[in-house]
Amino acid sequence: MPKDDVKLLGVWASPFVMRVQISLNIKSVNYEFLEETIGSKSELLLQSNPVHKKFPVLIHGDKPICESLVIVQYIDEAWTSGPSILPSDPYNRAIQRFWAAYLDDKWYPAMRRFRGAHEEKRQELLDQMVEVLALLEEAFGKYSKGKAFFGGDRIEFLDIAFGSFLGWLRVIEKVGGVKLLDEAKTPGLVKWAERFCADVAVKSVMPETEKLIKFSEVLMAKMKGARPSPKN
Amino acid sequence: MPKDDVKLLGVWASPFVMRVQISLNIKSVNYEFLEETIGSKSELLLQSNPVHKKFPVLIHGDKPICESLVIVQYIDEAWTSGPSILPSDPYNRAIQRFWAAYLDDKWYPAMRRFRGAHEEKRQELLDQMVEVLALLEEAFGKYSKGKAFFGGDRIEFLDIAFGSFLGWLRVIEKVGGVKLLDEAKTPGLVKWAERFCADVAVKSVMPETEKLIKFSEVLMAKMKGARPSPKN
Repeated sequence: MPKDDVKLLGVWASPFVMRVQISLNIKSVNYEFLEETIGSKSELLLQSNPVHKKFPVLIHGDKPICESLVIVQYIDEAWTSGPSILPSDPYNRAIQRFWAAYLDDKWYPAMRRFRGAHEEKRQELLDQMVEVLALLEEAFGKYSKGKAFFGGDRIEFLDIAFGSFLGWLRVIEKVGGVKLLDEAKTPGLVKWAERFCADVAVKSVMPETEKLIKFSEVLMAKMKGARPSPKN
Repeated sequence: MPKDDVKLLGVWASPFVMRVQISLNIKSVNYEFLEETIGSKSELLLQSNPVHKKFPVLIHGDKPICESLVIVQYIDEAWTSGPSILPSDPYNRAIQRFWAAYLDDKWYPAMRRFRGAHEEKRQELLDQMVEVLALLEEAFGKYSKGKAFFGGDRIEFLDIAFGSFLGWLRVIEKVGGVKLLDEAKTPGLVKWAERFCADVAVKSVMPETEKLIKFSEVLMAKMKGARPSPKN
């Protein structure tokens, strides 16, 4: 198959980059993955996303698209021949957009700060994550209606938005000695996560927990080295 | 014309509520505006948006939709017979979604905190707003290509996302004694703002500056009253 003229800038460990990879896989789009180096930013990244200077950036032809949820929607709209990522019904689309934004707003900040936080702060962040998961479990029951994924039989927008965090969720479970997804409190999400990770569009890009733990240790060491007087 | 079964929960002074009103006007949708009381939340609001407990909420039939940018996209997709709010080209859609998210992320927090801030903090917030406007002026030049609005000849998604802040932008200009939009630094946006406010979908819902100033004084007085030991 010939390569589409598509480049993806990012690092393999980023959940936001993974969203783009899963979406490209769903649409069977060939792409070139340009791995960024942690601690420095490529000239192409800075040129392509001058506003945020962050990955992921998708470059389609000569057009750069930034921000993961914007990119996922772009992929859905630019490659219409593959399976749809957003559901077709306007209300279901709104529901999935609502929860995806909620996750970026409430889940990600807690998850991101967990490893570097002190004991007391960790508990607060854990409580926040548990609260998000309880709401999401309820939403899953309400919207999946007994089917495999949030919107029915296949992976869609909200599955991608949340599923991309599963690797780091497992890191927190392991290093924090806690259980975030469990049969008692989030039975729907436990089964959903298994199905999500086993999906053909996901399994080649879902990182192993041990590999992520090593990555985060290198990252934290780099960050400490960069700070002249580390406070936490 | 018969009423569509559409209710909008919110307050007239909210830029986020205004986004929904403009979108409904563009699509010529009749709706019932249920004005919330500042300082208390209606039972219907709490039931319809249990996650955030915030307005705007659009209730279409028995379905509640929350979060202004999600609602605007819902309106565009549910009432397809009216003029389109998102452009048809996937890349142009991505551009408008990117900048709309950027405004909520960078502009709104600065704007919201301005009136209650001390002198020094005010300068910092002003600098942040000026930076956003400079980037937006550049984007306007790049994407409007000499036309009236960000996406061409009529009001679209990004126009609505930014235009809804114009009322409060003028409040800041007046109470802060500053000029945010001016001919020297943001000539494109000055003309754009005039056109936006004169548009038939906008002018009936764009609040007068004096009325907004009074509203914010009442709001600040209420907030002070609610705080036992006001720190700033």
